[in-house]
Amino acid sequence: MSVLTGIAASRGIAIAKAYRLVEPDLTFEKKTVSNPAVETDRLQEALATSKKELELIKNQAEAELGKDKADIFEAHLLVLSDPELISSIEDKINTEKVNAEQALKDTTDMFITMFEQMDNEYMRERAADIRDVTKRVLSHLLGVEIVNPSMISEEVVVVAEDLTPSDTAQLNREFVKGFTTNIGGRTSHSAIMARSLEIPAVVGTKEATQEISNGDMLIVDGLQGEIHINPSTEVLAEYKEKQQQFEAEKAELAKLVNEKSVSADGHQVELAANIGTPEDLESVLHNGAEAVGLYRTEFLYMGRTELPTEEEQFESYKKVLEGMEGKTVVVRTLDIGGDKNLPYLDLPEEMNPFLGFRAIRLCLEEQDIFRTQLRALLRASAYGNLKIMFPMIATIDEFREAKQILEEEKQKLVSEGISVAEQIETGIMVEIPSTAVMADLFAKEVDFFSIGTNDLIQYTMAADRMNERVSYLYQPYSPAILRLVKMVIDAAHKEGKWAGMCGEMAGDELAIPLLLGLGLDEFSMSATSVLRARAQIAKLSKQEMENLAKEALQMNNTADVLEAVKKITQ
Amino acid sequence: MSVLTGIAASRGIAIAKAYRLVEPDLTFEKKTVSNPAVETDRLQEALATSKKELELIKNQAEAELGKDKADIFEAHLLVLSDPELISSIEDKINTEKVNAEQALKDTTDMFITMFEQMDNEYMRERAADIRDVTKRVLSHLLGVEIVNPSMISEEVVVVAEDLTPSDTAQLNREFVKGFTTNIGGRTSHSAIMARSLEIPAVVGTKEATQEISNGDMLIVDGLQGEIHINPSTEVLAEYKEKQQQFEAEKAELAKLVNEKSVSADGHQVELAANIGTPEDLESVLHNGAEAVGLYRTEFLYMGRTELPTEEEQFESYKKVLEGMEGKTVVVRTLDIGGDKNLPYLDLPEEMNPFLGFRAIRLCLEEQDIFRTQLRALLRASAYGNLKIMFPMIATIDEFREAKQILEEEKQKLVSEGISVAEQIETGIMVEIPSTAVMADLFAKEVDFFSIGTNDLIQYTMAADRMNERVSYLYQPYSPAILRLVKMVIDAAHKEGKWAGMCGEMAGDELAIPLLLGLGLDEFSMSATSVLRARAQIAKLSKQEMENLAKEALQMNNTADVLEAVKKITQ
Repeated sequence: MSVLTGIAASRGIAIAKAYRLVEPDLTFEKKTVSNPAVETDRLQEALATSKKELELIKNQAEAELGKDKADIFEAHLLVLSDPELISSIEDKINTEKVNAEQALKDTTDMFITMFEQMDNEYMRERAADIRDVTKRVLSHLLGVEIVNPSMISEEVVVVAEDLTPSDTAQLNREFVKGFTTNIGGRTSHSAIMARSLEIPAVVGTKEATQEISNGDMLIVDGLQGEIHINPSTEVLAEYKEKQQQFEAEKAELAKLVNEKSVSADGHQVELAANIGTPEDLESVLHNGAEAVGLYRTEFLYMGRTELPTEEEQFESYKKVLEGMEGKTVVVRTLDIGGDKNLPYLDLPEEMNPFLGFRAIRLCLEEQDIFRTQLRALLRASAYGNLKIMFPMIATIDEFREAKQILEEEKQKLVSEGISVAEQIETGIMVEIPSTAVMADLFAKEVDFFSIGTNDLIQYTMAADRMNERVSYLYQPYSPAILRLVKMVIDAAHKEGKWAGMCGEMAGDELAIPLLLGLGLDEFSMSATSVLRARAQIAKLSKQEMENLAKEALQMNNTADVLEAVKKITQ
Repeated sequence: MSVLTGIAASRGIAIAKAYRLVEPDLTFEKKTVSNPAVETDRLQEALATSKKELELIKNQAEAELGKDKADIFEAHLLVLSDPELISSIEDKINTEKVNAEQALKDTTDMFITMFEQMDNEYMRERAADIRDVTKRVLSHLLGVEIVNPSMISEEVVVVAEDLTPSDTAQLNREFVKGFTTNIGGRTSHSAIMARSLEIPAVVGTKEATQEISNGDMLIVDGLQGEIHINPSTEVLAEYKEKQQQFEAEKAELAKLVNEKSVSADGHQVELAANIGTPEDLESVLHNGAEAVGLYRTEFLYMGRTELPTEEEQFESYKKVLEGMEGKTVVVRTLDIGGDKNLPYLDLPEEMNPFLGFRAIRLCLEEQDIFRTQLRALLRASAYGNLKIMFPMIATIDEFREAKQILEEEKQKLVSEGISVAEQIETGIMVEIPSTAVMADLFAKEVDFFSIGTNDLIQYTMAADRMNERVSYLYQPYSPAILRLVKMVIDAAHKEGKWAGMCGEMAGDELAIPLLLGLGLDEFSMSATSVLRARAQIAKLSKQEMENLAKEALQMNNTADVLEAVKKITQ
């Protein structure tokens, strides 16, 4: 057995066989052949095998995921039956006397290039279909196995270089018990996905795909950040016990699902969840979040070729508001730009995208996009308890302008006779230092603050959180950050407003004592962290945490703060 | 006549003929020739003319700039006399029957490629020489004039797309009375250069090079940001008067050169100058600066192929310290990275260089570079009043580490018997929000602060100051910035330390009243702004400015602050 260490990205213990989700090696050499008939036979055989395989996948997808998801495989089958394509490949084998692999590749490359250049979305999608099918046929010609993640039919731990959103969309979630990746950190897509699926994950192991073979027995220790490969019987027994213990604790936490979030000395706070799509609601309710503290609307705009319509947006917002049954839903308006691009918006390249044209800056400039979203939100407001939040506000002028546009759209809808909630709280993300520093004046105009720690930390420390060479400066527990957080909370309270936090920090066990002590009203986190946070807060005295926070604000550095937190909370 | 408007980058009025410093059009077509002898004759003629021209330039450069600067032209002359190169070109004309231009280009391209690929710095420089000479010969073949800025021998206004450091190095400063460029802003290289040369400049005119021909009579109005092309007699007369007036005011200001900087109600501050090289000292003394508030050491490291030695650095630092005759010289340690790269350091590309691995972050990692600079500084400290300042400090830990390294080098030098000043004040740039927010704790450990507004503003507002789409957020007068400045000044004073400012803002007429009111002790600016600032401060009441600043801190936005400043100072 051997052990890999990585970043514990999602809590829990998984024990299952390894399933490698790794791109196969489809390289080959061009060969001249003396007997083309052998090659055409090989081609026909590979085509037939591919067809059988695709039919199987299609039927399974139809049964489990519905006809919609299965359509893609229907399209692939059509490619396999395209007489023009097949005869072109055969012609090439016969006239040029090349091996089937080369003939297949040359011919499909030509079709792909042709389709891709067409000014027609439908035809461009065909190019993608041909590319996928070519891979499959080639794998059979070469005798190389290609992965079919939707075909997984037994419990597995997925092992991958990294997992993209489209990879995870294809996974059969019923059987995926955990995963591990070579790259990624706590905030990478795969980590977020694992937490939202509530399956254990260890990311950033560097060498999982090199060290692990298909079928290896794996233990994913999402608590310690370890992967055990082919463990001994003793280790396996030990982990089975740990797994049971974890499940028992989880069951214990589940009892808190309908409880309030109250400190040991009776101070109540709100524990909310961050979501990206209406589909996340199930986990929000299941985990007893008291509100949606951050609905990231970017996902509505991503993975598409054009902007979502007002109607599409309205349906999504309405679904979430109705699903929350009158509980608060804080929707953040479009936060695009920076590291999140939308290809169809054709945004200019920037030298420092994190300091660039993004979020509210873009929305105030591209008002059509902004107004469409606001109309959809206003229309949805009739179906629940909506609060609207603007991201990346740096000046009071920007907030006033955004609010003014919201008011204009509201008046238009009212005059069109469309029903809109009478009161909609309007707040801002506090993620830019200037806004924290000016919080006292902002508090007179906004209804609430939500502190976005990911960005606030990187701007306050002037350190790109994605840049490994300066990541040592990404310090959530820095006294400088705590001071800014305090400024925001105090400013809100002075004007009778509430202050929340929706960055990673809000759900962090080491941050919660400090934030409680600083007086934070609302903590918005991954839904799966809510119950644990509730249990933690129940054990903490607000009074004591106030003292802790007060001391932390006067400390010289992050190390001292962390030491103090660990001391008082152990 | 016509008028161009741009950004007033350097004050004053210049009246002189236009000199276009524009890359010539050296494009040509490949031709097949029937009589190669004609082409070889053309080549020989162009070579001879180039030779004569280069000899002239070389002699002039030697006389005016010294032998060092003339060496480059000697190297060019050697290229022109290289028999292998010349015969290769002639061979090509004769065997391939192409025009001289094509033969020249093909042959020199081959030599350039060959030399560039050599792993030898000397040979790579030869490639650059060949490229320069080829341009010159080609210009004579095509009958196109190429610019020889070092040959300027009458008073001119230089007109260019933009001016690079190497362009300005070649200018014969005696005759350049002003300049105007198509691009650039107040902080571009050409603007800074103009201010340091004390010649009027208007930058960012967009179309100067299109609208202006060689020899056009130009008025550069560096006060209003206007360029008058071939003005009428009336306008010319009007501007001659304005010019006299400006000179008279300048003469008036010059009387303040040995005065202290004292407000109307008797509060004294220090007006210092920012410099980049020992050559800037002349302007510092000439303009009555009381100290060097910022010596940017980057220039020592730039435009080279390897790091400067300890000895080279020592000589520069010593020169500045001696030149200032006991007055304070604040030296900033290497601030490289971000937008300032050193090719020979081979720094990695970054997604957000302004939030990246730069300045002290780099120095603490690449300690060899840092220690060499500190040793040079420590050795130089014996020759004047040196204060050392670390850039981009974000945490107290970073300052402590830098200080520790400085102490180690000091002890080493002392144990080697090398004399070092007993007391060297050690301070930090405050240009990262976290540092401003933590200034009270920093003040217990540093000897002084110098606020770097260019960076502080861009981080506080999360807006890249070079990015036009968000430049509206680069707001020096924002109440958020003023609040941070106040935190820093108050923190310094509480611990009996001093606080200065060395960003653009310190010399800004609209900022000075606010900064005086906030209690800033030292204002470090372009040397050429010092006398004007001294005159301005003499008219202001510190008491009144304190009230102005107090009000500004409670204002909602930059517009309100600017209005208040303008009201009280007019």
